Amino acid sequence: MRVLGIVGTGLIGASIGLRARHDGTRVLGFDADENAAAAALALGAIDETVERERLYRECDVVVIATPPRATCEELTALRGRAPAWDVLLDVASVKRVVVESATGVGNFVASHPLAGSEGSGPQAARADLFAGRRWAYVPSGDEKLDARLRAFISRMGADAFPCDGARHDRIVAVTSHVPQLAARLAARRIREIGDDYEQYCGPAARELLRLSRSPQALWDEILAENVLEVKAEGTALAQSILAACRRLGN
Amino acid sequence: MRVLGIVGTGLIGASIGLRARHDGTRVLGFDADENAAAAALALGAIDETVERERLYRECDVVVIATPPRATCEELTALRGRAPAWDVLLDVASVKRVVVESATGVGNFVASHPLAGSEGSGPQAARADLFAGRRWAYVPSGDEKLDARLRAFISRMGADAFPCDGARHDRIVAVTSHVPQLAARLAARRIREIGDDYEQYCGPAARELLRLSRSPQALWDEILAENVLEVKAEGTALAQSILAACRRLGN
Repeated sequence: MRVLGIVGTGLIGASIGLRARHDGTRVLGFDADENAAAAALALGAIDETVERERLYRECDVVVIATPPRATCEELTALRGRAPAWDVLLDVASVKRVVVESATGVGNFVASHPLAGSEGSGPQAARADLFAGRRWAYVPSGDEKLDARLRAFISRMGADAFPCDGARHDRIVAVTSHVPQLAARLAARRIREIGDDYEQYCGPAARELLRLSRSPQALWDEILAENVLEVKAEGTALAQSILAACRRLGN
Repeated sequence: MRVLGIVGTGLIGASIGLRARHDGTRVLGFDADENAAAAALALGAIDETVERERLYRECDVVVIATPPRATCEELTALRGRAPAWDVLLDVASVKRVVVESATGVGNFVASHPLAGSEGSGPQAARADLFAGRRWAYVPSGDEKLDARLRAFISRMGADAFPCDGARHDRIVAVTSHVPQLAARLAARRIREIGDDYEQYCGPAARELLRLSRSPQALWDEILAENVLEVKAEGTALAQSILAACRRLGN
């Protein structure tokens, strides 16, 4: 990796930049939000803010680190273009729609680091965000390309594992998306019961409140992009809670 | 506090014993399960295992640290007895049924430390389990008695706060009991999706799995003793999840 390009310098993008620069890699960054790009530069997560075109032209590794919808749009716009990059990856929490959008995009591998934080933006970035974490990727069918992706993931301190896009989306609905939805609703009720609620919060309630501080707009987008799985698994969880309440007796 | 008596030397009772002995207080312990009492003794959480009668006769502070149902039975058996103790307290997660059972029990104050762990038994005890935690109590109406309880809570490293029993039970249904129920069901589904589920678990899923490892029999009892609040709040959470899933569209 000579030059790394990061499209979207939020929490994930800036954390990748911090880690890569720590190892001596030169990092170029672009963000549609100029403030986010400037903050990433000020925080040392990138060496330079550049135009999108120059980033795709000059970097051998490019990471698209935007929310799911913007990721799909970015990939659609790259279709049919001759890749100047050796490997292009995304980091979105949903994989099926991303893989579909990437049809005809050269040297692309879809991926998803199982890491994050309730914080957002470059201010919340940490060079060790991926240390010891799992990082899923959807094998591209090109073993040399996949090997380059795995080398990048390894550089981030994470453990790469291959997954099927549809199965990924089902599993993260269960392990992440539905828990996030339920946590948001449970936390809302905790805050409703009165100003003294914090006195009654043990570790579990504090984790619920932490999760509920995650950026709501980003999560709304993730839930919407994984709507079928989230609806199915969310409905099943709600039904099992109702059944358990009925079994409790009176 | 000259001599502390602990009835029930599980996670909470043994943690209280460890902390008290650390400060030089002599601690007598009783547990209906002789193995639990012996383990607490071996772990240094109590100085001596004694018969129940001797414990109530010789200790100036007595803690009933059994599950909710056994706590109510213990208190019922103490009704009308002339107290040899200066203060008697319980630590159960529900307060209304405990306060009712304690009618006619001398020098008693109902209380609940907002602390715990997914572990159980004296093996999981820690002297610092209550450090910096909140510890609720239902004022007895006897200010001198309440002051002795607050002094004890302070010795445990926790912050005492007064609460109403009915309001306590409603709030912990929201902050603790319903989250525990939902976590158990969500964790069951996570384990169902396949042997590879752990690869997909971020911090939120790991917290769910941790909560689901809490002792199920104890939790079944807590849920049953707070059944009205848990049913109402659990049903409301399930309905809000269903409504959110409907709003997600297709």
